[in-house]
Amino acid sequence: MKFTNVIGGFWQDRQSLNLNVSIPSIVKTFIETGRIRALSKELNENEKHHPFWESDLAKWLEGVLIHLQLKPDDELNQFAEKLIDKIIANQEEDGYLNSFFSLYEPENKFTNLKLRHELYCAGHLLEAALEHLKLNGTSRFLDAMERYMDHISDTFGIEPGKKRGYPGHQEIELALLKAYEQTGKAKFLNLADYFLSERGSQPHYYDEEERQRMSKEKIIDFSDFPSEIRDVVSSDMPDVEKRDYTYLQAHQLPVNQKTAVGHSVRALYMYTAMTDLARLKKDPKMLQTCISLWRNIVDRRMYVHGGVGSSHIGEQFTFDYDLPNDIAYAETCASIALMFFAERLSRIERNSEYADIIEKVLYNTVLASTSANGKGFFYDNYLECIPDFLTFQDRRHGIRDEYHTCSCCPPNVTRLIADLGRYIYSSCSEGINVHQYISSESSFKIDGDSVHLKQQSGFPWEGSSKLTLKKVSGKEFSIFIRIPEWESNLNVEVNGKIVSYQSENGYARIKKKWEEGDFVSLSFNFEPRLVRSNASVRYNIRRVCVFRGPLLYCLESIDNGPNLNQILITENQKIEVMTDDALTPGCITLSGNFKRIQSTTDNLYSTLKPELNDSKTKLIPYFLWANRGENEMLVWINEA
Amino acid sequence: MKFTNVIGGFWQDRQSLNLNVSIPSIVKTFIETGRIRALSKELNENEKHHPFWESDLAKWLEGVLIHLQLKPDDELNQFAEKLIDKIIANQEEDGYLNSFFSLYEPENKFTNLKLRHELYCAGHLLEAALEHLKLNGTSRFLDAMERYMDHISDTFGIEPGKKRGYPGHQEIELALLKAYEQTGKAKFLNLADYFLSERGSQPHYYDEEERQRMSKEKIIDFSDFPSEIRDVVSSDMPDVEKRDYTYLQAHQLPVNQKTAVGHSVRALYMYTAMTDLARLKKDPKMLQTCISLWRNIVDRRMYVHGGVGSSHIGEQFTFDYDLPNDIAYAETCASIALMFFAERLSRIERNSEYADIIEKVLYNTVLASTSANGKGFFYDNYLECIPDFLTFQDRRHGIRDEYHTCSCCPPNVTRLIADLGRYIYSSCSEGINVHQYISSESSFKIDGDSVHLKQQSGFPWEGSSKLTLKKVSGKEFSIFIRIPEWESNLNVEVNGKIVSYQSENGYARIKKKWEEGDFVSLSFNFEPRLVRSNASVRYNIRRVCVFRGPLLYCLESIDNGPNLNQILITENQKIEVMTDDALTPGCITLSGNFKRIQSTTDNLYSTLKPELNDSKTKLIPYFLWANRGENEMLVWINEA
Repeated sequence: MKFTNVIGGFWQDRQSLNLNVSIPSIVKTFIETGRIRALSKELNENEKHHPFWESDLAKWLEGVLIHLQLKPDDELNQFAEKLIDKIIANQEEDGYLNSFFSLYEPENKFTNLKLRHELYCAGHLLEAALEHLKLNGTSRFLDAMERYMDHISDTFGIEPGKKRGYPGHQEIELALLKAYEQTGKAKFLNLADYFLSERGSQPHYYDEEERQRMSKEKIIDFSDFPSEIRDVVSSDMPDVEKRDYTYLQAHQLPVNQKTAVGHSVRALYMYTAMTDLARLKKDPKMLQTCISLWRNIVDRRMYVHGGVGSSHIGEQFTFDYDLPNDIAYAETCASIALMFFAERLSRIERNSEYADIIEKVLYNTVLASTSANGKGFFYDNYLECIPDFLTFQDRRHGIRDEYHTCSCCPPNVTRLIADLGRYIYSSCSEGINVHQYISSESSFKIDGDSVHLKQQSGFPWEGSSKLTLKKVSGKEFSIFIRIPEWESNLNVEVNGKIVSYQSENGYARIKKKWEEGDFVSLSFNFEPRLVRSNASVRYNIRRVCVFRGPLLYCLESIDNGPNLNQILITENQKIEVMTDDALTPGCITLSGNFKRIQSTTDNLYSTLKPELNDSKTKLIPYFLWANRGENEMLVWINEA
Repeated sequence: MKFTNVIGGFWQDRQSLNLNVSIPSIVKTFIETGRIRALSKELNENEKHHPFWESDLAKWLEGVLIHLQLKPDDELNQFAEKLIDKIIANQEEDGYLNSFFSLYEPENKFTNLKLRHELYCAGHLLEAALEHLKLNGTSRFLDAMERYMDHISDTFGIEPGKKRGYPGHQEIELALLKAYEQTGKAKFLNLADYFLSERGSQPHYYDEEERQRMSKEKIIDFSDFPSEIRDVVSSDMPDVEKRDYTYLQAHQLPVNQKTAVGHSVRALYMYTAMTDLARLKKDPKMLQTCISLWRNIVDRRMYVHGGVGSSHIGEQFTFDYDLPNDIAYAETCASIALMFFAERLSRIERNSEYADIIEKVLYNTVLASTSANGKGFFYDNYLECIPDFLTFQDRRHGIRDEYHTCSCCPPNVTRLIADLGRYIYSSCSEGINVHQYISSESSFKIDGDSVHLKQQSGFPWEGSSKLTLKKVSGKEFSIFIRIPEWESNLNVEVNGKIVSYQSENGYARIKKKWEEGDFVSLSFNFEPRLVRSNASVRYNIRRVCVFRGPLLYCLESIDNGPNLNQILITENQKIEVMTDDALTPGCITLSGNFKRIQSTTDNLYSTLKPELNDSKTKLIPYFLWANRGENEMLVWINEA
């Protein structure tokens, strides 16, 4: 049984869709494309196993195993068990466990950590195995993964005779720290600590690894690759010393990295692990690094929908304030990883900013990433979509695909939605933290007693939430209620009476002797609000986006006609709130009499000024865009 | 002796720089990279001949041979003659003349017209040879090219036994029509006519060609190529029937093409030839097609600096009003080709729009393409430059390179600057057309008599020009003086007295009996003017750019600090005119007290409105940007 269950309302619908549609739909594509047959070397002649395929299965399994903890399902359980059997059947005598290398390239095991996702797969399998243990109490899957981790520990480390390697795609670090916390076994902590201490040190392991490969590997011509990739992958440069490993966050020791750079998912998985390490080892220097990285991201490198990693070239972070909308990358996985990072930081410090960002990501990029029917998934998360433009820029189109060749995002979403309960509350020495307004039930141990809390939330459509205490009798403790950054005057009532509160790091602290049936009613300001970018974001100057509560809104051409950039929000724009159940049940849309900038000539260029005409305009929640066919979409609207 | 000589002033300086710096600098890079040694198979082990290298040499030669017509130069002439010898030394018995195929891949001759630039090189060589004939009266170079054209005619055509092929990169068509006009030999016209009639017909030649290659060619995996390229080049699709040849303008018969699509240089070279063919064959349907294509380009697909072809993916035209600034492609060669197209249309109809566009291209993209020192060249012509952004988008940087691997643009610029005289005047049955305001001397035959015209122009710094008649006595004819589209009230004086005139298709017609020494003084409005885009161009909504006379202006961060998008032109903005000889002698810069939009918070997102502060702002001519190091640049400035 999970600590927190999502019960009823908006998010339970999403969890049901996740379990009943997304999870079967994804595994269907995995079966069809050979990801499961690859485990037993049953691929057809034209199919090719990929080094990252096992991670796709692992993430999918993890989501399933979490769902099974929430609600048993024999059929799904049996499927998962069989899949686990197939995976661990490939374990070798010495503990090595990777179907791609064991079955297809045994001679290349641990020869290219930099590029071939070997330890990345290990990390995802370990995470899935940890959920298997939670589900069952014992786990042959985790036993197998522990043997594999032991083998990895025997292979890599600073001790004489070991390779001083570390993953090219970080992930295993955070998995190891989860394993440590769940099992208490210090060896997991130590291996993660080693990876995060060794990374980026000189002489550089990847130079050494490449030198060893160069003698036996065929030279590939990478001259047509984008330069960032080329620097990392090309094996035809004789002077391997000059490589720049920024892309892999291996350009310097993690503890010395203060700016979010390189491949965004690699970066954020690593920052997540670094935060855990800082907490578990009580390392103030590492914590300071994590906070610097966090500030760099949320103050300068994050889209307003919670997307990060703005360049599709290398899927990477770029530079401060570089947040293009129509060529945004903002990979779904990167936003999920940002949630991980935020959640880990929130374990160290109660600060509403972390849950604010989690809310932003959850209600916007994460929700948007899945189609309303649960089957399609975004990889890139645009903030402006012009279908023809994407075609000519050779970018993914503005419609959710049911299958992606690189299929990291879909199962990352399903495991996140399954695990949503993790983000709603946390316990602390003084009582309970309420981070998210999601209908749910949860149990807490307070001074040894079990306290039960039920939340009924109107989010995201209504700005209200009610917390009801159960199984409690006269126990004094505090409930810390997050005041969202967009809420200037949160109304809190206890048992129907307004209470005043102190705000501590963005949380309203309500301290009292709580009795069975006590309830806290929260009223949030859900008036639509206009949000602006810092003027250093060149793309958004003189533009606003519209939020209502946690939800970002957008324009689609299906409602407003083409040329969405012609639409203008004017001073004191009146915005009406309406319901549109056709988009999704309960959906709130916004509308108003906006203006439209129109030319007074057909000429392409002229000295004439345009005119402003009235334009009845409708906005829909960003997360629902592209559910009525591919069409134009715009988040940042011109403001008079 | 050329028909028109550029004499004195701004453009003579450019021609001198072209001859004395650009031409030697380019050939130096050609020598160093092996383009000349390739002709005699003297490449080093690591060097590789490229199918398009011969075209680079041909364009360079063409520019040199035009310069030699303007002014003899023994040393340069000897160099050119030796190069011609090396080129024609590769001619085979049957007339075939292409060093790449003859020396390096003889088995692949005429097996891949679609992609391998074989007939493209032939066209450029023919153009160069025509200038050689003009220079010398006789030409072994043209003789060789004529034999090659005969061989091509023997190989391709609708007659039984011939291949029904045509070039994958159009160019030879316009060269053949030039050859026809210069020599009067109908075979050149007929071959061009065949290429332009056969193109895009079914069954499709490129399908057939591919089918024949597939049996013997090694299969290349093009799966990593952008989709447009992939569709055109991949040879691993069994169903070759389904190819889309839009990229090569071979998707339908040229006469049926009404929209500018595909690779922009291929397109415009073809439209140029189609216009010549329409004129020479008096084909109204083909002319109507050319006018449709012209309208589509200048009304919907042309940047304000005269650039065309907005996507770097495939260097191609995209869709109406898709003119991104910071990821613009706008290849230099495409703008030059647009000048060709305009000039050919102007031979059919006296309409100032053609010379207007030539002026726009000439003073902006073409001038900008060369660095102030004559050595560096732009390939892409951005309208906004953020250096770090280009790095992360894997685009060419905002600085002119002295060498480009694909070196089509630099010699295209040098041959154009050499040939500038072509664009200034034309003769007509009623007299003389004056198209461009460039200091020059020219001779015309009017009713059998030679009339000499001298122009002294202040362009582009001063809005005046003076035309003086020489060698004329009491002959009545008209001078048609172009009224630029940016000039609403051109002041024309004859012998110091204001004259009224009728405007005919944008030309002021001055008809009189002209006497020796008569002079026409023109005064243009050079007040800086704000130009706006059609509101269908989403990138430029609520933005203006600044022109003065023919020159587009821009902001650079070296003058204005970073974040140029924060700068705001306000209502009735006062703009002062200043001289800055440091940029280039006589250079006029603009400045004013603009505003700057600045955030009132450091937060990345907030509900706060920005504030407007004063900002002393300087604009420089667009063509001079990036001459003081790589820095931010902006053409389209926010307008209040």
